[in-house]
Amino acid sequence: MPQELTIALDAMGGDNAPACVLRGAAMALVRFPGVRFQIFGDERQIAPLLEQVSMLKPRSEIIHTDQFIRGDDKPSAAVRQGKQSSMRLAIDAVKEGRAHGVVSAGNTGALMAMSKIVLRTLAGINRPAIAALFPTMRGESVMLDLGANVECDAQDLLNFAIMGDAFARAVLGLSHPKLGILNVGSEDEKGHEEVKGAALKLRECGLDLNFHGFIEGMDIAQGLVDVVVTDGFTGNVALKTAEGTARLIRTYLRDAFNSSPVAKLGAFFAQGALATVKEKLDDRKRNGAMFLGLNGIVVKSHGSADAYSFCNAIGVAVELASHNINQKILQEIKLSSASGEPVANAS
Amino acid sequence: MPQELTIALDAMGGDNAPACVLRGAAMALVRFPGVRFQIFGDERQIAPLLEQVSMLKPRSEIIHTDQFIRGDDKPSAAVRQGKQSSMRLAIDAVKEGRAHGVVSAGNTGALMAMSKIVLRTLAGINRPAIAALFPTMRGESVMLDLGANVECDAQDLLNFAIMGDAFARAVLGLSHPKLGILNVGSEDEKGHEEVKGAALKLRECGLDLNFHGFIEGMDIAQGLVDVVVTDGFTGNVALKTAEGTARLIRTYLRDAFNSSPVAKLGAFFAQGALATVKEKLDDRKRNGAMFLGLNGIVVKSHGSADAYSFCNAIGVAVELASHNINQKILQEIKLSSASGEPVANAS
Repeated sequence: MPQELTIALDAMGGDNAPACVLRGAAMALVRFPGVRFQIFGDERQIAPLLEQVSMLKPRSEIIHTDQFIRGDDKPSAAVRQGKQSSMRLAIDAVKEGRAHGVVSAGNTGALMAMSKIVLRTLAGINRPAIAALFPTMRGESVMLDLGANVECDAQDLLNFAIMGDAFARAVLGLSHPKLGILNVGSEDEKGHEEVKGAALKLRECGLDLNFHGFIEGMDIAQGLVDVVVTDGFTGNVALKTAEGTARLIRTYLRDAFNSSPVAKLGAFFAQGALATVKEKLDDRKRNGAMFLGLNGIVVKSHGSADAYSFCNAIGVAVELASHNINQKILQEIKLSSASGEPVANAS
Repeated sequence: MPQELTIALDAMGGDNAPACVLRGAAMALVRFPGVRFQIFGDERQIAPLLEQVSMLKPRSEIIHTDQFIRGDDKPSAAVRQGKQSSMRLAIDAVKEGRAHGVVSAGNTGALMAMSKIVLRTLAGINRPAIAALFPTMRGESVMLDLGANVECDAQDLLNFAIMGDAFARAVLGLSHPKLGILNVGSEDEKGHEEVKGAALKLRECGLDLNFHGFIEGMDIAQGLVDVVVTDGFTGNVALKTAEGTARLIRTYLRDAFNSSPVAKLGAFFAQGALATVKEKLDDRKRNGAMFLGLNGIVVKSHGSADAYSFCNAIGVAVELASHNINQKILQEIKLSSASGEPVANAS
């Protein structure tokens, strides 16, 4: 890490807050000993827990507040009425330069709405996107948008490609990530106007991007590309469909291995092998969805995250902050608009 | 079956034509002894193969043609230049009442374009949809549209729901299928205008439909609903993403079971259990996507179908024809428009 990083934590967001937030932070400190934390939330709950993870104590500061955003709060209400909430104060810390990024396991809609209002979008970006990693035959890839924007035009998709490229460089350490646009076929004439327009823009934007072309749903898990670009509706459905399918197959396997004494014997001998598969499919490893396109690093942890899972979300924030991802995105956006492509407000 | 059914077969479509078409038809005859076949294609190739499946011979008639649609032919070109093709003649047989349905493993786009022009859409339906079955925790569900329409308005989605309901009654034998609209969340305010509008129309259409509301990608494989209604872009991506995920996990499992002698021993004892899982995930069982919303039954088999797989596609055509699915759809569409909802040409 080029500098000492401070991460703001919304200690009150998610099903297992604040305990898993603090234990996750302690785990993250083992991986990133130079990180400091600002912990936003109810000091009466946080202080005793901090005593239990004593290594975390000297590296963190509690900023007390009584106000929290609940999981079922409407984003608009959270923005209006939650100005003293742990989530909002944590975002404010990024805005005011006191923290290099924020991590929350709270209400996704509220986190996005507050982040947009407080941090604003990067110059040239109309809409922020949610990006996350998923497992493939070749390792891991990035997909975006995963649900921030249910409707996107060609320009939005071009911007997502630029942001996904920067994300893959920072988090996956790739020097020249391969980009693909999710579509219903790989041929140029397939799909709606938005994807066709985005493909054209990507080919003509003048940036040194490794654009593969259109990919299909089947190609996501194959790892055909490193960055899957799509609108938030399709991306959300694709991600959750993949999760649901993995869950279905796990259930099939569990039932099958419990179906007879011989099958149980097989499961006994295969337990090491099955544990490897389980580990590969473990979503906790890939916890931490980044809100890309904002003037600041905002990472959303799964609401049901345990400590290990939350630690990984902190890891994403640290990687992105230490790679100065937003500077890289700004540079690329500027280059793409210099090449004659209007960037913001184009459609 | 209420009557003796005749199915028209495009013997020249797909990777394994015409051999698998004929062997599939012979297998289908074991399941449906009352069915007759009209086999369209090159008699010089078909006649000798027919000698090998002698039981099929007395139940079928060869209609010779030299013209075939290739997998890479453009739909528009196929429509213009393929008037004597095996695919077109098989569709014509349905149009002219000589066959009760057609099955082809050929070019999907060409089959859809020709079917639309020859058979035309049902009264009240603007756009036909592609429907197919997929496995869930509870058995099987139907999803549509799977790619015929990359853009759909609320009225199209309502019509898909009505058609999917009829499909689930006919093929799954359900008396009151549960319907859901695929979305990025289950709350009413989630999603774009098209899905919100479709939900409203479904609630107000006056039909006795079992509408659950919005579902998410995760719910597809859970089997939360029997009929998943979505636009062709999202449906295509969801289906292929699920297939890709299943393939990824199969690869993980195969690698894991080959990773050590102990794991191999486990695989040996578990082989019966693993075969059960493989069978449940076997796409061949569910081969046969129906083009719903046309004046006639058109079933598309996977291009790479083997005989067993093609037999199942014929099974779908037989089930739909014997249940008079199109009469049921027409009735429901008429009822929904009588309730004050304009059906065709609305948006």
